[in-house]
Amino acid sequence: MSPSKELVDFLNSGHLYMPGISIDCVIFGFHNRQLKVLVLQFKSTDGYALPGGFIRKEEHIDDAARRILEERTGLKEIYLEQFHVFGDSERGRDDTHRKFSRANGIELEADHWLLQRFLSIGYYALVDFSRAMPTPDVFSDTCQWYDLAGLPDLILDHNRIVQQALETLRLMLDNKLVGFNLLPETFTMNELQALYETILDKPLLRANFQRKMLSLEILERLEKKWTGKAHKAPYLYRFQDRH
Amino acid sequence: MSPSKELVDFLNSGHLYMPGISIDCVIFGFHNRQLKVLVLQFKSTDGYALPGGFIRKEEHIDDAARRILEERTGLKEIYLEQFHVFGDSERGRDDTHRKFSRANGIELEADHWLLQRFLSIGYYALVDFSRAMPTPDVFSDTCQWYDLAGLPDLILDHNRIVQQALETLRLMLDNKLVGFNLLPETFTMNELQALYETILDKPLLRANFQRKMLSLEILERLEKKWTGKAHKAPYLYRFQDRH
Repeated sequence: MSPSKELVDFLNSGHLYMPGISIDCVIFGFHNRQLKVLVLQFKSTDGYALPGGFIRKEEHIDDAARRILEERTGLKEIYLEQFHVFGDSERGRDDTHRKFSRANGIELEADHWLLQRFLSIGYYALVDFSRAMPTPDVFSDTCQWYDLAGLPDLILDHNRIVQQALETLRLMLDNKLVGFNLLPETFTMNELQALYETILDKPLLRANFQRKMLSLEILERLEKKWTGKAHKAPYLYRFQDRH
Repeated sequence: MSPSKELVDFLNSGHLYMPGISIDCVIFGFHNRQLKVLVLQFKSTDGYALPGGFIRKEEHIDDAARRILEERTGLKEIYLEQFHVFGDSERGRDDTHRKFSRANGIELEADHWLLQRFLSIGYYALVDFSRAMPTPDVFSDTCQWYDLAGLPDLILDHNRIVQQALETLRLMLDNKLVGFNLLPETFTMNELQALYETILDKPLLRANFQRKMLSLEILERLEKKWTGKAHKAPYLYRFQDRH
């Protein structure tokens, strides 16, 4: 096959980017007691990968992360956070990029910029997957949500990157909860608990959970809505305004 | 003045390192209700800086961080953790390295590798400063502990790096406590509380603190030592063996 113009342009664009550094994005999706992660499949290969890319020489790394995510998946205005730099000394020096290019009609030279060692800065986000509609870019056949338990084998160390992002998400959930913007404007304690149980992948005791959440001092309790059965109506909460 | 051989060698060693990436280490020191941070003063200049350096092309970044810290300060076997990548688009493109080189007898060419943009990977650690004896390297006049409140103006964004490391330290203290290895084998709840109060820079309520610490399930309570005044003797604790 003959390579696409987009692929040729990309493979010739190494001079635009900071050498030896990439960004990979772990986008977790939550909805209705399910936790998923967003994965691309490279065109014409069996290579599954996180949405990733490179940092332009004049670009702040956080801007690069947002641009890369949008270019690869179409997702915009996502609250991305750095969580770790993956820096094994041989990282990137395997056949991944060579196989992808070959499958799409180009043989990379031995000194091609894509074949060098790459550090990768990991960013993660948590979104409502029912409201985020990813679309594959020109280099991918698919861009889809996968259950964490059913994740395919990913290229390079991307499975490890997902695992470490998950550990960070679990550890930081209390602190990032407001920013993730996953819940409706007002929500019940049950809805909040379902979010925690899904992400932590374990049941929590209702009383302990409520006590802990209230102790974080991020919730504002609203009045019960009058339904005629007030004693059964749950309290509604919203996140406190922090301004 | 004529430049030292070490400086000439270093300035000619750019090909050994990954381009555009550095590492900076924020070493917090705790002892006796004081929290300090380790700062170098560049030779023959008024430039104060965190211990930092570059990643060898064949080196894991965590190994690089440990090597850099030892080379710059003499400190070994420190538990370093990554906390953030500093990636402003103009980072490193100021006069800092030019002024240091000039003050030590070398004028850098405009395209010198030290004058390009650098991302920096921040690592932090918390040690007992009474047991850590830092020594300056050949590029520094001093390598000393500074009170956080009395920190000098540092080069580049190093003051911001310290601030972000401090926020991470405070946020992660519960999780990193065992690894930091700051307390004696056995310690009292008062000693633990003094550590927290110093790092968080605020007083804590004794009963709340004790309840929270016990809820973390990392402490093992030992028997009181018989002193003849058992009712006054505090309990001793140690960290649970996690193997």
